[in-house]
Amino acid sequence: MKTLKIGLIGTGFMGKAHAIAFNAASSVFELPAKPVCELLADVDLATAESRARAWGFARATDDWRALVADSEVDVVDICAPNFLHKEMALAAIAAGKHVYAEKPLALSTADADEMVAAAEKAGVKTLVGFNYIRNSATQLARQIVASGDIGELIHFRGRHNEDYLLDPEKPHDWHTKRATAGAGALGDVGSHILNMAEFLTGQRITQVCGQLQTIIAMRPNANGSGMAAVENDDQAQAMLRFDQGLIGNIETSRVAAGRKMGLAYTLTGTKGAIVFDQERMSELQLYRHGDAHGRRGFTTLLAGPEHPDYAAFSPAPGHGLGYNDQKIIEVRDLVEGIINDRPLYPDFREAARVNRLIEAIETSDQSGQWVMV
Amino acid sequence: MKTLKIGLIGTGFMGKAHAIAFNAASSVFELPAKPVCELLADVDLATAESRARAWGFARATDDWRALVADSEVDVVDICAPNFLHKEMALAAIAAGKHVYAEKPLALSTADADEMVAAAEKAGVKTLVGFNYIRNSATQLARQIVASGDIGELIHFRGRHNEDYLLDPEKPHDWHTKRATAGAGALGDVGSHILNMAEFLTGQRITQVCGQLQTIIAMRPNANGSGMAAVENDDQAQAMLRFDQGLIGNIETSRVAAGRKMGLAYTLTGTKGAIVFDQERMSELQLYRHGDAHGRRGFTTLLAGPEHPDYAAFSPAPGHGLGYNDQKIIEVRDLVEGIINDRPLYPDFREAARVNRLIEAIETSDQSGQWVMV
Amino acid sequence: MKTLKIGLIGTGFMGKAHAIAFNAASSVFELPAKPVCELLADVDLATAESRARAWGFARATDDWRALVADSEVDVVDICAPNFLHKEMALAAIAAGKHVYAEKPLALSTADADEMVAAAEKAGVKTLVGFNYIRNSATQLARQIVASGDIGELIHFRGRHNEDYLLDPEKPHDWHTKRATAGAGALGDVGSHILNMAEFLTGQRITQVCGQLQTIIAMRPNANGSGMAAVENDDQAQAMLRFDQGLIGNIETSRVAAGRKMGLAYTLTGTKGAIVFDQERMSELQLYRHGDAHGRRGFTTLLAGPEHPDYAAFSPAPGHGLGYNDQKIIEVRDLVEGIINDRPLYPDFREAARVNRLIEAIETSDQSGQWVMV
Amino acid sequence: MKTLKIGLIGTGFMGKAHAIAFNAASSVFELPAKPVCELLADVDLATAESRARAWGFARATDDWRALVADSEVDVVDICAPNFLHKEMALAAIAAGKHVYAEKPLALSTADADEMVAAAEKAGVKTLVGFNYIRNSATQLARQIVASGDIGELIHFRGRHNEDYLLDPEKPHDWHTKRATAGAGALGDVGSHILNMAEFLTGQRITQVCGQLQTIIAMRPNANGSGMAAVENDDQAQAMLRFDQGLIGNIETSRVAAGRKMGLAYTLTGTKGAIVFDQERMSELQLYRHGDAHGRRGFTTLLAGPEHPDYAAFSPAPGHGLGYNDQKIIEVRDLVEGIINDRPLYPDFREAARVNRLIEAIETSDQSGQWVMV
Repeated sequence: MKTLKIGLIGTGFMGKAHAIAFNAASSVFELPAKPVCELLADVDLATAESRARAWGFARATDDWRALVADSEVDVVDICAPNFLHKEMALAAIAAGKHVYAEKPLALSTADADEMVAAAEKAGVKTLVGFNYIRNSATQLARQIVASGDIGELIHFRGRHNEDYLLDPEKPHDWHTKRATAGAGALGDVGSHILNMAEFLTGQRITQVCGQLQTIIAMRPNANGSGMAAVENDDQAQAMLRFDQGLIGNIETSRVAAGRKMGLAYTLTGTKGAIVFDQERMSELQLYRHGDAHGRRGFTTLLAGPEHPDYAAFSPAPGHGLGYNDQKIIEVRDLVEGIINDRPLYPDFREAARVNRLIEAIETSDQSGQWVMV
Repeated sequence: MKTLKIGLIGTGFMGKAHAIAFNAASSVFELPAKPVCELLADVDLATAESRARAWGFARATDDWRALVADSEVDVVDICAPNFLHKEMALAAIAAGKHVYAEKPLALSTADADEMVAAAEKAGVKTLVGFNYIRNSATQLARQIVASGDIGELIHFRGRHNEDYLLDPEKPHDWHTKRATAGAGALGDVGSHILNMAEFLTGQRITQVCGQLQTIIAMRPNANGSGMAAVENDDQAQAMLRFDQGLIGNIETSRVAAGRKMGLAYTLTGTKGAIVFDQERMSELQLYRHGDAHGRRGFTTLLAGPEHPDYAAFSPAPGHGLGYNDQKIIEVRDLVEGIINDRPLYPDFREAARVNRLIEAIETSDQSGQWVMV
Repeated sequence: MKTLKIGLIGTGFMGKAHAIAFNAASSVFELPAKPVCELLADVDLATAESRARAWGFARATDDWRALVADSEVDVVDICAPNFLHKEMALAAIAAGKHVYAEKPLALSTADADEMVAAAEKAGVKTLVGFNYIRNSATQLARQIVASGDIGELIHFRGRHNEDYLLDPEKPHDWHTKRATAGAGALGDVGSHILNMAEFLTGQRITQVCGQLQTIIAMRPNANGSGMAAVENDDQAQAMLRFDQGLIGNIETSRVAAGRKMGLAYTLTGTKGAIVFDQERMSELQLYRHGDAHGRRGFTTLLAGPEHPDYAAFSPAPGHGLGYNDQKIIEVRDLVEGIINDRPLYPDFREAARVNRLIEAIETSDQSGQWVMV
Repeated sequence: MKTLKIGLIGTGFMGKAHAIAFNAASSVFELPAKPVCELLADVDLATAESRARAWGFARATDDWRALVADSEVDVVDICAPNFLHKEMALAAIAAGKHVYAEKPLALSTADADEMVAAAEKAGVKTLVGFNYIRNSATQLARQIVASGDIGELIHFRGRHNEDYLLDPEKPHDWHTKRATAGAGALGDVGSHILNMAEFLTGQRITQVCGQLQTIIAMRPNANGSGMAAVENDDQAQAMLRFDQGLIGNIETSRVAAGRKMGLAYTLTGTKGAIVFDQERMSELQLYRHGDAHGRRGFTTLLAGPEHPDYAAFSPAPGHGLGYNDQKIIEVRDLVEGIINDRPLYPDFREAARVNRLIEAIETSDQSGQWVMV
């Protein structure tokens, strides 16, 4: 059996989620190659070594440049903070590696564009971890929209609200500084709903009109030395125009009390509607105007083997996928795309669109006007 | 026992809802006066007479001017189509009657302002039927916000979406013409959510940025003579800024597949959040960030006797209020306000604000810019 | 217009609910006669007079025997505690009045049978207030079952759990004594779910196997003089066999923490299922096995004008009925049945079945065996 | 790092779920030994070999006896149909292997007891795959009950209903024959809810009174040769008495239209209640009677890192666990129990109780009486 050797940078939350997915993917899916955990990098060598042992990586390093250059590594997987994505990705591309990176791709559109150009020139494959689009119920939503079952779309409503920074005593980390994170909620979780908007509708956002707000202006420094300003948005909202006439709106927040995995959307069409909430990730609500009079209502579809990518996890409906299962699907796509030399989605070019949308919303917030994307 | 004699104009959906409320109110609430169904007007005399008998009105007429002038009538209740509100209300005010009118108050801000001026000059009481603010669960939401239990508000999200005009074969009626309805969805159902936004937050909307769309451009004429253009919006959305820094957004539609009574809102504060959906009108979801770690979540509060105006309907929680019960509460407020000479909310002045907000959203849609209210 | 003159006994929770319904019914429905609030009885004359004024009764009395004998009264409506039902009903029947009584009909099957015999011999109409079967969504459930849309029924699951006696400090009242209430939870709320079981399925329960428990053995006396034993059940459950092979089970409780109006049922058939919860009384969940593969799920039907008795309250779906609206439908049935001389459901005979089922469950609890009904 | 070598028998649904769990477990949890996929058995060698390659097993065989005897194998994992459990387990125990088996443990209590005796005599560890008790939300439910937060339990309601055999055209397989499956729904899914009842309450069921029904009496033979009788129950229900006075009831079905993963329970205590539905496996509903007046209601707790075993999957709440994650937790418990020589739960002895409860319900169905367990 073929193998695809992974060099993973980062041992945090996302690094672990990727590791789980690499380990599980070939027992879930029939893959054209087996992902092999080859090399794991962390700034702290002991951490890298300990995690490598636990996660099944053959080797560990505290030097991500060594990882990128390692001749055994086929794919460089970047799970480091946002501000490191560009440098790491460019180095990996320069070394001829395929690149699998977490979102948002870059701190700015300019950076993202530079990364796209480099990857496309080098001809390497790229994939960015907008994992929520891989959830079975969301793939089903896309399928229903594309099938025309709910008619022509007339409205898109999306949000990705969480409350991980609601507590004003929570100190600064890289998320709250522009130099390390770029945008705030809009970049971190808002990037998901912007990507999702285009994925679900199959349409391009052409104009935005947005607002950003920092709710908690000052936070304690992580080192205990007093307070410092939060440099990016805690919440944002925008109205959207799409290229085929569709309108919509999105919200995003990191201080929205009560929302834990608050990605949700409503797709309204001329013949029906779809409602989804990621906190109930294995359910999709479907309304069809054509159903019999007196029997119309939202039907709760439980993800099941009839729906995209579910059957590999369970032959029985309603058994439920979890967060990490989305990453397993993502890894399946990564492996298949690379081995079979097929386009990956969303690649760097697609992910750069998200950066472009974020910047347009920020520009609109400044100007108080609609902005072309 | 004192009485308050009602002259009701209109025998449609809203006329009937008002009649039910007048008949039931004094067995539900302890009222300072008994509302008496005195005179009922409809353009068709037979209809007026038949409905008067059924609904307990002492007399009937096909002449609303006679009703307005009738010396026995204390309150003129206007349940006629929007375009008639102004003329009827001005006549009633001129006759020194108190006026209870359905929403939206007027076709335009100018008309609304004229009505406000007349009423205030005449010193009559006015009340406009934004009945959803009287639902027990929504009054509770207002109470929780005002108490500070969810902290300072940082975001308001509201929608009032229905799908009563989703079918493109449905012919024109007065709702679809500017001369008879004014704004479309924005005026008809959107007026509720705009009023609700200020009611719930206790804040004033100072700026709006909006979009309107007519989805079904042409509809059959009611008389069968071919097609004619729809003259107002099928759906609209807007971002909002409030006077104390709060931001938010609203949506409204009459073509939103699946939504029947789709008024819903989310109030997000620095210490908690409230979520409500009128389709489950006796439930309020409350999240408090201060709840114990590991025990935080949205609590479903079923309306009960501890909550505003519920106990009059039932001494036991969870038994459920219905649509018409909101009108009974509204009638209670009408009677108490008039008899005890206390301010009514929302009166014409307050309702004129809603016309002002609607116009500002329409202006913004034209200019593509934020508009001051 | 014809009238039907009501003599109402009792001014508590249920008396008020009946009064609201009498006042509102003819503005909601087209009735063949107008229910007229003629005479109101309460043991306290001042209360009777005050409530009569508020509720629109022409006269008041503190003597229920005078009410029963009053020549102006067409219908005697009994909203007094359970232990008074028999004496009042027999007196009313003896006076040739139609009788409308609250549930449970009697303290025992023997008493109920005596009441049935008297009413049938006298040829008066009787109706018992099992109001939950009149809710639009529940009538729809019955309609769907009867239509065969969910196939042949194979399982019935019902419960009516509340928590109104959960607090052990709550003192005795007539509910907790056998002489005044008969059975406890089983009689008070369990009677609803037993009646509902036969209403929904259209089948007769032929065998039961049950258990009763008193959870809070002692409660304070109402007069403050120490503690006394609770004399009937706080919770009960039973398995059921129906005459056409269907099996099922029910639960009932007055100490079920969290349940406020906890009547709920699941009807499972060979081709589908229905799920309902009275706390969301305007929703019915419908599953049809025949729906398309991958599109099967429970559909949330919001009560609307296509469903039984909804249109009289609102022409628009999803607007929601409330608890008191059920009583308005019940009054419509009372008036129509009496004026048009048609059978009423559930009459005393039907209500006596519920007493019979309650006793069978109590017998089974004693014997530890299945009991024929 | 230590290893624990697994010999897995069976490559169906459950075999695959176990394989995924073995592969993922050490990247999710810190394990005291790494589970190693050593040997995979299937009756078809090609299948065994193909699955071994995909799932990372070092070797494959078509002879389960060889697997059991293999000196490299530490743990024999039995994912074969029910009727093979006994022979395989006894052989594995005889070979001194630890045994991890799927549920129900055996076709009868007698068989189960024999397996318990053998395992305990041999001193090997045993674990049976009642995986739903390992779900984070359900562990939380157990924790809340044990803490006394909802007071003393007064009622347990459980069901495990599915509809996988609803279609009468579905042919026989081993589930529908007594010789291969033992009990029907009661054994297959009912075993889960019986185990769950004792797990959640911490109490022992001492008496049962039950009913079983075969709804679809005849099914097509798998080989197309006409119809044959279904030999076990399609649905069952029982009332329960526990050793500390608690009562309750359970339902189970394989023909319950609409239920896909229909394990659900309600735990009612003197101070609160818990409601759970496995179709929303990462949510727990908690009611506490002690909450403030007017603020009491069921709180939706989303599984999060404060709850048992969640943090290993994600540091953020609400991200959701899936079906297979339960098996990963089960494998963690297997590895820890064996390596640290600690008791496993539920072991063969505990699983034999479930067989005992199933038989008692069957006996009660025959006798029509309560049966001591």
